[in-house]
Parts: sequence; C-alpha cells; structure tokens
Amino acid sequence: MEYKKLGGILGKIMILEGILMLAPLAVSIIYKEGLKNILAFLVPIVILALTGFLLQLPKPERNNLYQKEGFALTALVWIVMALFGAIPFVINGDIPSYVDACFEIMSGFTTTGSSIIPDITSVSRSTLFWRSFSHWIGGMGILVFVLIFIPESDDGSSMHLLRAESPGPQVGKIVSKMKVTTRILYLIYLGMTILEIVILMFDKPIPGYENEQFFFSLLTTFGCAGTGGFGFIPGSMELFHPFSQYVISVFLILFGCNFSLYYLLLIGKVRDVFKSEEFRSYFFLIAAAVGFVFLSLVDKFEAFPQVYTIEEAFRHSLFQVSSLITTAGFTSTDFNLWPMLGKTTLIVVMFTGAMAGSTAGGIKVSRIVMAMKGAYINVRKLINPRYVPKAKFEGKTLEAKTINDVFAFITLYLFILVGAIFLLSFDSINGQVVTIVSDAGTYDVIHGFFSNFSAALTCISNVGPAFEAVGPYASFALYSNFSKIVLTFTMLLGRLEILPVLILFNKRTWKKV
Amino acid sequence: MEYKKLGGILGKIMILEGILMLAPLAVSIIYKEGLKNILAFLVPIVILALTGFLLQLPKPERNNLYQKEGFALTALVWIVMALFGAIPFVINGDIPSYVDACFEIMSGFTTTGSSIIPDITSVSRSTLFWRSFSHWIGGMGILVFVLIFIPESDDGSSMHLLRAESPGPQVGKIVSKMKVTTRILYLIYLGMTILEIVILMFDKPIPGYENEQFFFSLLTTFGCAGTGGFGFIPGSMELFHPFSQYVISVFLILFGCNFSLYYLLLIGKVRDVFKSEEFRSYFFLIAAAVGFVFLSLVDKFEAFPQVYTIEEAFRHSLFQVSSLITTAGFTSTDFNLWPMLGKTTLIVVMFTGAMAGSTAGGIKVSRIVMAMKGAYINVRKLINPRYVPKAKFEGKTLEAKTINDVFAFITLYLFILVGAIFLLSFDSINGQVVTIVSDAGTYDVIHGFFSNFSAALTCISNVGPAFEAVGPYASFALYSNFSKIVLTFTMLLGRLEILPVLILFNKRTWKKV
Repeated sequence: MEYKKLGGILGKIMILEGILMLAPLAVSIIYKEGLKNILAFLVPIVILALTGFLLQLPKPERNNLYQKEGFALTALVWIVMALFGAIPFVINGDIPSYVDACFEIMSGFTTTGSSIIPDITSVSRSTLFWRSFSHWIGGMGILVFVLIFIPESDDGSSMHLLRAESPGPQVGKIVSKMKVTTRILYLIYLGMTILEIVILMFDKPIPGYENEQFFFSLLTTFGCAGTGGFGFIPGSMELFHPFSQYVISVFLILFGCNFSLYYLLLIGKVRDVFKSEEFRSYFFLIAAAVGFVFLSLVDKFEAFPQVYTIEEAFRHSLFQVSSLITTAGFTSTDFNLWPMLGKTTLIVVMFTGAMAGSTAGGIKVSRIVMAMKGAYINVRKLINPRYVPKAKFEGKTLEAKTINDVFAFITLYLFILVGAIFLLSFDSINGQVVTIVSDAGTYDVIHGFFSNFSAALTCISNVGPAFEAVGPYASFALYSNFSKIVLTFTMLLGRLEILPVLILFNKRTWKKV
Repeated sequence: MEYKKLGGILGKIMILEGILMLAPLAVSIIYKEGLKNILAFLVPIVILALTGFLLQLPKPERNNLYQKEGFALTALVWIVMALFGAIPFVINGDIPSYVDACFEIMSGFTTTGSSIIPDITSVSRSTLFWRSFSHWIGGMGILVFVLIFIPESDDGSSMHLLRAESPGPQVGKIVSKMKVTTRILYLIYLGMTILEIVILMFDKPIPGYENEQFFFSLLTTFGCAGTGGFGFIPGSMELFHPFSQYVISVFLILFGCNFSLYYLLLIGKVRDVFKSEEFRSYFFLIAAAVGFVFLSLVDKFEAFPQVYTIEEAFRHSLFQVSSLITTAGFTSTDFNLWPMLGKTTLIVVMFTGAMAGSTAGGIKVSRIVMAMKGAYINVRKLINPRYVPKAKFEGKTLEAKTINDVFAFITLYLFILVGAIFLLSFDSINGQVVTIVSDAGTYDVIHGFFSNFSAALTCISNVGPAFEAVGPYASFALYSNFSKIVLTFTMLLGRLEILPVLILFNKRTWKKV
C-alpha cells in the first residue's frame, strides 16, 4: 500500500468536497440563515481544504495505483466524505448527534435516502440543500466508479461504452478514452438534470410553498438524478401535483437506465438501445410491477385505508414502482398499509434494483437476468453433462466467470442482508409501538421483524424508505446508535457492491509493497 | 427418456409405498378404529400394488439410467409418493380436501412438518402414525438420495464414506460399494431410531396421555430421525417433561450430523470426526445460537409474555435452536412472541440448516462455510489478481467449481424464497386477524409480510413452523389452495435442493434418446 499516494488522492477528494460545500454555503447566505448556519459549512470547508492540502505534501514513491489500492481507495473516499460531510449538520444543530449526522450524509452520498430526521420542517434550507445535493454528488461518483471498475470487474454489463473500441492492453489508451467517456457521461447527467429542473418549473406551485418552486425543483431533481430520494417537506412527494409526480416517475425510470445507452443514443445507435436485453428486462419488470401494484389497489380483495380513483391508483403504482425499482425512495402516498400484493411487489423490486451502469442500487436487472441464464445452464448440464453452454448476454457470449461472479455477488448480498437483520435484532426499539401519521390516517405499528428486514433491505439496496415502523412516513431516528452504524455500513456495502468494502478489512491490503 | 425403465422403477417405489402403508393399517387395526379407517389405507395399498405391478410389465429398451433420468426420477418419486400418500387422509375424512392432504403428506415426506390440520385432537391414531412415519421414510429417502447423487454433484460434502476407497471409473465397483454403504447408513439410522425410542420410554408419561407413551415415543422418534417435526398433541412438545425435551434436543442435534461421520466412528476414525470443519462449524453455530436465544430470554430487554426460570429459558433455547437448525420444527413453547433477538436467531438457523449428508434441510452448514471461503478468495483476488487460491475444505482442496455451485445454489435459494413470498402475497388471508392460543396466552395477530416470509422460508428449508399468523401454535390451514400448492412445491424444491425439480420442467429431459 502506497500510503502517500493514497493520501494525496484522498486529499484531492477532500478539497473537492470543500468546493462542493460552497453550494450549500451559498444557499445559507442567500436565504440569510445567520452566522451559525454559515459557519456550519465554512468550518468544514476550511478543515477539508487544509487537510487536503497537507495530505498532498508528501511525495509518493510511485505514481500508479494497484488494483487493490484502487478498490480500497474507493471505499475510503466514501467513508471520508461521509465523516466530513456530516459536520455541518452537527454545527448548525439540525442533527445534533454525530452518528445520526453520519447516517444521514452516508444515506445521501450512497443515494439511499433513508433519513433520521424526525421532523423535516425543523431543519434549515442549507441542510436540506446539502442532503439532496449529496445525492447528486453520489450519483456522479457512482458513474465514475462504474466506468473505472466495471471493465476490470465482472458483472458483464461491461461497458457498452467501450464496445466500439477494442480495449487492448495499452493502459494509457484506455485511460485517455476513460477521461473522454467520463466527460460525456457527466454531460449527459448534467443535461438530464437541467432538463428535469426546467420541466418541473412548469407545474403549479405546491400550495403552502408558493415561493419555493425553484428550490424544490432543484432538490427533487438532485434526488432523481442520484436516485437518492430524500424528502424535504412532510410526506415526501405526497403534496406534489400529479403533473410533477408523473414527470418524476419518468425521470426516475430514465435515471435508472444504463448511462451507456444514452451514449449509444448520442452516437445514433438507437437500434442497439432497444436490442439491449437488460433494457428490455428493465422495462418489462417495471410494467409487470406497476401492473401488480395497480391490481392490488383496485381489486378490493384486501382492505386498506386509502381511497383512490383509478387515475390515482395508477399514478401511485407508477410512482412507487419507479421510485423503488430505481432505489430512489420518494413516496407519493403511504404504501405501508397497502395490500400485501402491492407491498410484496415493491419488496421484490427493492431486491432487483434498476439497470447496471445507472445511479441505482440493488442487485441490478442485468445480474438477475444473468443468474437466470446461469441457472438454466446448470439445469441443461444436469440433463447432459457434456452440454457446452452458448448463452449470450447483450450479444456477447456469457462467460462462466461472469455468471460465477454474479452468483457470488447475490450470495454475499443475502449474507449481508441476513447479517444486518440479525444485528438489528439487538435494538431495544424492537417490540415498541410507533405512531405514524400519513395520508392513510394516524395509526400505531409495532416495530417487528418486517421493520428490521425492510430496513436492512432498503439500506443494502440504497432505496430509502422501509416498511412497518420504518415506513415511508416514519424515520430511522428511533434506532439505537449501534443499529444506525450497522445500517450506515450496510448502505456503503450496497453502494460499492460489497467487495471494495470487504477489501478494507483484509490485512494484506495494508501491506507495504 | 426411457419411459418404460422410468415406469418400472416408479412402479417398484409404489409397491414399496404400499408395503410401508401396512404399518399405519396395522395401527388402525390395533386401535380398532373401524372400517373407514382401515379402508383408508387398504384402498391405496391395493391401488399402489396394482399400478406398481402394471408399470413393471413393459420391458425397457435399455437398462441403465442417464444422469438426467436419475434426477427426474428422484423428483417424480417424491411427487408420486405424495399424490398416493395423501389418499388415506381423504378417505378417512381427517383431511377432506385433497390439496390439503397432499400438502400434509408432502410436508411429511420432505420432513418439513408444516401442518394444515387445525385441531390435531380430531384425527385418528392411524393418521397421526402415517404422518410421522412419512418423516421417517422421507429421512431414509434423503440418505439414499445423498448417497447416489452427492458424488456426481458438487457440494463438496462429497462422501467421506467413500474417502478410504478411491472411487475410480469402474461403475460396477462403486455401485456395489454404494449398496454396502447404503445398508450401513440404514443400520445406523435404524439403530439411532431404536435407541431414542428406548430412552424416551424412561420418562414419566405425559399427564392425560398415560397409556400413549410407546405410541408417542414412536411418533416423536420418527419426527426426530427424519428431522420432520409433526406434532401429534396440542402444543407440539410443550407438555413433554424436561427429560424428554432434553433427550429430543440431543437426538435432533445428532440426526442433524452428517451420517458419514457415524460411519467414521464405526470404523474407529474418531479423530477424523472432530477434524471435520462442518462438524465444528455446526456445533459452534448451535452454541452461538443457543447463547443468543438464551440471552434474549433472560436479559429483560424486550418484554414477552412467558415467564421462564433460568433452567426453562436454557431448555427452551436449546430445544428451539436444535429443533429449527436441524429443520425438524418441534416446539416446546410459543417462540412467536419471544424478543426479536431470539426470533431473528431462529430465522438465521432456519436459513443455514444443519450438516450436509443429514436428514435436515436448509442451505446446509457446509455450503455456508464454503461460501464464506469463496468470498474470502474473491477478496484476495481483488487484492492480488495473480492470487492462486489454496483454500481447503475438510482437508481437500476446495475446487473453484465447488464454490461456484455453492454460490449458484444459494442464489437460486434466494430466488425461490422471494418468488414464493411473492406468490403468497396474492392470498386473501393477508391482512386478516388470526387468533392464537398458546402457552403465551390467547392473542391476535395480523397475517402480514412476516407470516409469508417465514412460511416460505420454513417450507424451502423444510423446517415446519413459521412465525406470526403461521407460528408454532397456528396451522397452514387458512392459506388458499393456490398458496398451499405453492408451498407444497417449495418444500419439494428445498428437499431435493432445487435442480432435480427444475429438471422436470425442461422439455429436453423428456426427449427420447
């Protein structure tokens, strides 16, 4: 491990975080939030800049990074960003506990969107901005992460971007291409962000928040682009007009697409987009899930408190499915009391997540498809031991190694999920009654197994809301510090797709080479 | 597919089932249960014998079985045995619905132990006997299954039995060895069965059932040996004296051991037994789980209705952990209202199951250990791409193929679990209130997500009881026929470890070769 090099890069990232914090600082100044709120950002900016500068002073002994260093660095970057990104909330007093603040900002950077703020109306605008902005930053980070690691890693979503080019052994060439494609990705990301902000401005203002339309459009779009999903008024997006809810649904689905598809669109290969198996599976899954949720809301089979018109039932089905499959986690209504079919469908899409190469979390549709193909191959091999698999994915032969990596990933996903649920079972919140106020009325729920199960699932899949006592209208505030740390860590594991985090805990990673 | 050969073997199995049914027929006669109960077994015995005879008339064109035929046959055998084994319950009226009867007997043969009988006191002794006996038969079937398929399959628990010998390509030799080892396995199984029956006879009779001690010892032991777990008096084993509960716990743990370890014991290789990694992991897991459950019952952290002495808390912890990790599913107390830590620990061991090569279900401890090692290898490979794994399991090099098969299995396990939960969400029982009467008092629970989750888990892991509305003191009777069929199928998938069942649905399996 080349510590000096590692420190140098970390330092650069810290300076970058300091620069990004100028945005909420500006918000604080614009809205005249007073000295405490300004200092809340100014202090960490100074700390970040200074530490970042100091970390770059030692001259590294070598300039390249080994793979293990790359992975460890990625995990460290997220941890460091969260540790410093949490400071403003503590200074301005919006989230007095540092553990809570770390949970909140990790939930932001990992684009999860689970919140520990019990009353969202009590916090400053700069806090709201920094939270949502962290989604957008996190989303960008994921895109780089995807770009840098996917070609070396294994999940077979392997960079359509580089499809036209044959990635040879010339590292320099790949890196220069990577820089170009990173820029293109960022431009697409930025372009879609601006487009959504503009479109959202066409809606009528939300009653009671007449002067906030631009601010809200900004925060909403940050949450959509990063598929994060922090709410910023009570009830998440319940009060938004149907127009906005439809717009948000559509943009969520778009941000859940593999960004390389947009690159293909840009270079005119429209047909290639529609040929993509993951793309088709993704839209099929969305259509099926919306159908099942809609069915559960209109069939009168199982009673639930809300009364929806057909349009409302459709809109909420579309909104919740898009929001949960893309692992954003915005809510348009309290789905906690929906019929079991609706809830279970949402749980299923929380497992799958959206497309690889997007800002979404979860297992990813491509992995689900590849695992299915892998299972089919295993059955065929039992039928005929000499069977030579010729399965393809996205037009390329599906290598055994790719399938194995997918199986390994899903297994670890299950282990981490079960492990997190087990650790949450130590919490004294279990068995307690929690009162929830939502558009479904005021009701009591007991914090039971389903709460812990869905909390762990929502964190590993970077979704946001869970069910039961940690449902869409509840917060994660009642969990103990220990549970919050477990969940914070689970979000990071989910975001970085497990292995880069595990690498931090192997002593060989830290050996001097 | 050689249909005639297949039919011939199926026919033999049917005749065998008919012979096995003579036992409950005898019970029916001994207890003078009347003509209807005698006919209940006599009619299917005649049908089985006749059909079995007829199926053997066509002369097969070839005499050997291909691998695919072997697997398909295994799945078919279980289905056919369940379809015919269900008939007595319908004829004697104890379970009037045929779907219910199939659920019950499949639950028996797969050694699951989930029951759809709402009031166990209402059924005849011959029904009780046949249900529990089916566990014992199922347990035997699994041992053969393990013996025949494990060497060709992949899960690395690969037959310590054949360790001394080098299994060469001479098929004849292996088969003859297989016959010998099968007999040895059966003798061990039978010996342990008799031993447990004898030991249980030393206890005081259960108050109110003074004349039933032998009958109950028999049924209890059938459930233990097959790790099945059907109850036969209200409250499963709640009324059993502590002596019996301890004896049962110990025997359950023993029946959850890999049977090849007993073979090693028999040939004097005691040290090899204690060297077995799976054996150590299994006992470590039991100790840890008992510890956590015990902690949850004595720490006063989370309130629950029962008041236990320290001895009772320990006994119930030991009993429930042994019962659920071995996937038997007997209950000594209502764990449905236990603190979350206790319940979640039980959920975790329902996932893991006991040792491979035992009659238990679940993922199996060996697979968990191998998956952990596989994950470690993946991390090491990230750290150093040229890393050559030298992981060992049970003293042998752990092949990449073995690890991959484990990952594939666990992935499919998760998919089937999620799929079953989704299908259960269509049931109209969801959201209904169910009243439960147990040693914890009378209480209402809503049939929610946890019910479906644990029902699917208990069926795929062949455990028996679930939680919430399908907890240890409830039955599966309230599920719709559709759900019951889903769960019946899930049990079979779990029992045969997925692939042999999936093979039935591939058209290539049925192609004439």
